[in-house]
Amino acid sequence: MKKSLMAVALFGAFAGVAHAQTAVQIYGTVDAGFIKRSGQTLNIGKRAANTLGFKGTEELGNGLKALFQLEIRYEPDTGTVEVANRPLFQGQSRVGLQGDFGMVRIGRGLTPYQETVGAYEPWHSLPTPAGFYTDLTVAGYNSAPLDPAGSGNNRWSNAFWYNSPANLWGGFQVNAAVATKENTGLATAIVGNGTAAAPQYPVGAEASANPFSLSATYNNGPASAMFGYERNAIETKVWTLGGIIAPVQDLKLMATYTRQDRGHTAAFNPRTKAWVLGATYAMGPGKVLAGYGQKHPDGAAKTKQFSLGYEYSLSKRTYLYVDASRKKDITTAAGLLANPSTVNHYDVGVNHSF
Amino acid sequence: MKKSLMAVALFGAFAGVAHAQTAVQIYGTVDAGFIKRSGQTLNIGKRAANTLGFKGTEELGNGLKALFQLEIRYEPDTGTVEVANRPLFQGQSRVGLQGDFGMVRIGRGLTPYQETVGAYEPWHSLPTPAGFYTDLTVAGYNSAPLDPAGSGNNRWSNAFWYNSPANLWGGFQVNAAVATKENTGLATAIVGNGTAAAPQYPVGAEASANPFSLSATYNNGPASAMFGYERNAIETKVWTLGGIIAPVQDLKLMATYTRQDRGHTAAFNPRTKAWVLGATYAMGPGKVLAGYGQKHPDGAAKTKQFSLGYEYSLSKRTYLYVDASRKKDITTAAGLLANPSTVNHYDVGVNHSF
Amino acid sequence: MKKSLMAVALFGAFAGVAHAQTAVQIYGTVDAGFIKRSGQTLNIGKRAANTLGFKGTEELGNGLKALFQLEIRYEPDTGTVEVANRPLFQGQSRVGLQGDFGMVRIGRGLTPYQETVGAYEPWHSLPTPAGFYTDLTVAGYNSAPLDPAGSGNNRWSNAFWYNSPANLWGGFQVNAAVATKENTGLATAIVGNGTAAAPQYPVGAEASANPFSLSATYNNGPASAMFGYERNAIETKVWTLGGIIAPVQDLKLMATYTRQDRGHTAAFNPRTKAWVLGATYAMGPGKVLAGYGQKHPDGAAKTKQFSLGYEYSLSKRTYLYVDASRKKDITTAAGLLANPSTVNHYDVGVNHSF
Repeated sequence: MKKSLMAVALFGAFAGVAHAQTAVQIYGTVDAGFIKRSGQTLNIGKRAANTLGFKGTEELGNGLKALFQLEIRYEPDTGTVEVANRPLFQGQSRVGLQGDFGMVRIGRGLTPYQETVGAYEPWHSLPTPAGFYTDLTVAGYNSAPLDPAGSGNNRWSNAFWYNSPANLWGGFQVNAAVATKENTGLATAIVGNGTAAAPQYPVGAEASANPFSLSATYNNGPASAMFGYERNAIETKVWTLGGIIAPVQDLKLMATYTRQDRGHTAAFNPRTKAWVLGATYAMGPGKVLAGYGQKHPDGAAKTKQFSLGYEYSLSKRTYLYVDASRKKDITTAAGLLANPSTVNHYDVGVNHSF
Repeated sequence: MKKSLMAVALFGAFAGVAHAQTAVQIYGTVDAGFIKRSGQTLNIGKRAANTLGFKGTEELGNGLKALFQLEIRYEPDTGTVEVANRPLFQGQSRVGLQGDFGMVRIGRGLTPYQETVGAYEPWHSLPTPAGFYTDLTVAGYNSAPLDPAGSGNNRWSNAFWYNSPANLWGGFQVNAAVATKENTGLATAIVGNGTAAAPQYPVGAEASANPFSLSATYNNGPASAMFGYERNAIETKVWTLGGIIAPVQDLKLMATYTRQDRGHTAAFNPRTKAWVLGATYAMGPGKVLAGYGQKHPDGAAKTKQFSLGYEYSLSKRTYLYVDASRKKDITTAAGLLANPSTVNHYDVGVNHSF
Repeated sequence: MKKSLMAVALFGAFAGVAHAQTAVQIYGTVDAGFIKRSGQTLNIGKRAANTLGFKGTEELGNGLKALFQLEIRYEPDTGTVEVANRPLFQGQSRVGLQGDFGMVRIGRGLTPYQETVGAYEPWHSLPTPAGFYTDLTVAGYNSAPLDPAGSGNNRWSNAFWYNSPANLWGGFQVNAAVATKENTGLATAIVGNGTAAAPQYPVGAEASANPFSLSATYNNGPASAMFGYERNAIETKVWTLGGIIAPVQDLKLMATYTRQDRGHTAAFNPRTKAWVLGATYAMGPGKVLAGYGQKHPDGAAKTKQFSLGYEYSLSKRTYLYVDASRKKDITTAAGLLANPSTVNHYDVGVNHSF
């Protein structure tokens, strides 16, 4: 009988994981600054998502690796986890294997559709209202409508991911994910095509079909193109076509066109179309960001947004930023407005990665 | 006047703990897979407890060490801390000293009884329903009945631990813990031998006696035996006798016999008896797990469980697993059933330690 | 087109922050022991704040550094984050820059006033009731009255900090912070000079003026002096004058005098005066702590506290402690008492830093 037989009964809880050899990598971002929005007092807040993560890989031989990643998301101005009691590891919690075949992972994380469109957006997928990522780039689409209120709109719990190697057939990559139908804690019924008494998705509803998400990218010299398609737990569909071109070194021009179809839950006007044009121009340590876009839900007024930003790198890991943005919108936190209302947004701050 | 006098007033909060020399060790487990249970949709979930921990020791001289351990527990499928708002450091939060005398610790952690019985259970104390650890091995006993709803059933807050050295008198080890009577947040009264109007343990009740927990193990060549005894905050008692024998290399046979006595709170049928037989057989990188057990509360129907599992190691830190289990039970989340109901459980997944 | 263009679309989420070169430093404190207070059962609890922190700096060249610090606070006896659902990073969450000019930071942390007075208090700013830091040293002042119930009383969210270099004009240092007026989640109205129907600060109120905090210290040989002033979100003001002198090596004598003025919200008796005398005496690895103080709110009875403590260092990072304290007070958790009530407090435990 080997010593390990009695390990738990001895100092087991402390001796724990003596076989752990690979160092865990700690990484993250702290981003904080001053924000002034129309109708609000001066705030301190964030421009980028703030993260504290733990990740690692283990070589298994034959080119196979095991990998994991756990990513806390928090608000630096108040020290809390992200708004509205999001999960501790809101960023992601995944474990998987990587090899010649690509990578498979299981757990919680960004959907392939959401992850891919973010690379074709001028504010490099930052959640700031100065950027387009969380609204116009995705035509207002929500990846996780059955999650509890306040949950992130671009992540899935209970899902399985596949990413192909980076250069399939000379430049292609494909990414896919599928989620289970599990009830993840919907607290407010979605009436949809039902009635208040018999909502289409009642409190605690499961998905009516397995959500899935697909994206493909193609890279060729100074040009890159993407296509993404996703169907969520209430069978809303979205697709995006995007491209980037770099006509000269330092200048990138980009565009996305997106359609959302809520036909499964909306009897009238189910479609929303949106497009975003963007450009970034690097000048030494500085970079100018610019974008303009429109979102047009069937039968409602257009949302229009114009944004200008500047990032100044103090190092590879630290930069200062300033943004100015104007958005004319009919949707607010209080619901739909009869007439579009204009919100100006200004911010200035610092972003530090570690 | 030394410089340290003004340290806090200067960059104190940042300069902080300049004397910290020993590296903190980060460790943990990510375990996720697919689970199918009778009457449930396909789920993504866990088989093992998922942890992210921080620990370290400091040499104090003369063989004395200071040690600490903080262990986060979380759900990898959703990224939240463990179910029902358990503490951030649900795994443990303890500080202590270790020396020739053994180890003393203070804080929160597994009770010695629970930690010891887990080593004599074929699913190596995993919380999966395919294993026996959380129910049949302990005859349904709950170590912490006065904790808030959803708390772990095998841990104590506000306790003091002692572990003897590993080889007292040639093979023995003894472990003990005692907890304070502190109210830890009971939110629903326990009627017990009282009435609904005057429950035996009202909301916010303190323990009626100090909970204590004892275990002893004896190891001799291919055999190991254990005895454990525990009394919780409502004076329910439990004891277990367990053994493991390895008749040939790679094969381990194990058994536990357990009695729970709820005499302090139950006027009728206070006793529950349970036994579990288990075996594990290693074949190269693979290991077969098997177990069968029964739990018999006085005056109620028996619970019977049979489980079969297989683990395949990709490395020392990563393994794949598959389980099949059948349990015939009268207790469900909704309460006691008139007739035993059968639940089949299947899972397949990956476990990665770091 | 550079490879980075497509990074997010590939293994982006995992490859993440490949530019991170500086190791993140993990640090913290675990402090737990036995506590006996008049009228309470024996408890396990803490004497010092318990922390688990992550921090780092990055050299930017020309003497400039970027820095961040994230600090979890928790209860070691139960494993939860600090009482009453405080933020995950209750200790602090800040990012900033440091250079010849001093240090600027943004986020959440201790106010300069609170951080400075703690260095002139005999229990070195520990939150234990045996010390004076959280009550008599600050004359009962609360830095964050508009924060949610149970929040810390000495920290600000949404603030900007400046610390000067340590030896301005041969011995001075100045520290300052200013916070925004943001609503941080007040859940219970503060009636103040209003009425129950129209409270001065209703639920969710913003600050009526920007909170600010100032402190200055002067160090000269065996003597050190401080002055601090702060105004909180409901315009309560506080100032403290403090000093330390070391007449012989190993002996430090210290004193603070503090005035709080609640004139903005209290129609009658707005002022509270308080003073604390303290001494510490080092004897080899041991240190004796002693203090006596009084707090006198206008028109109410005095609070008086006497405390004696002893710390014994096992190493630079680990010490044992014992305290005895007596406090005669008219304020309790249940409100104001007609007559002062006496509470005795005893504790013994261990403090380990890592």
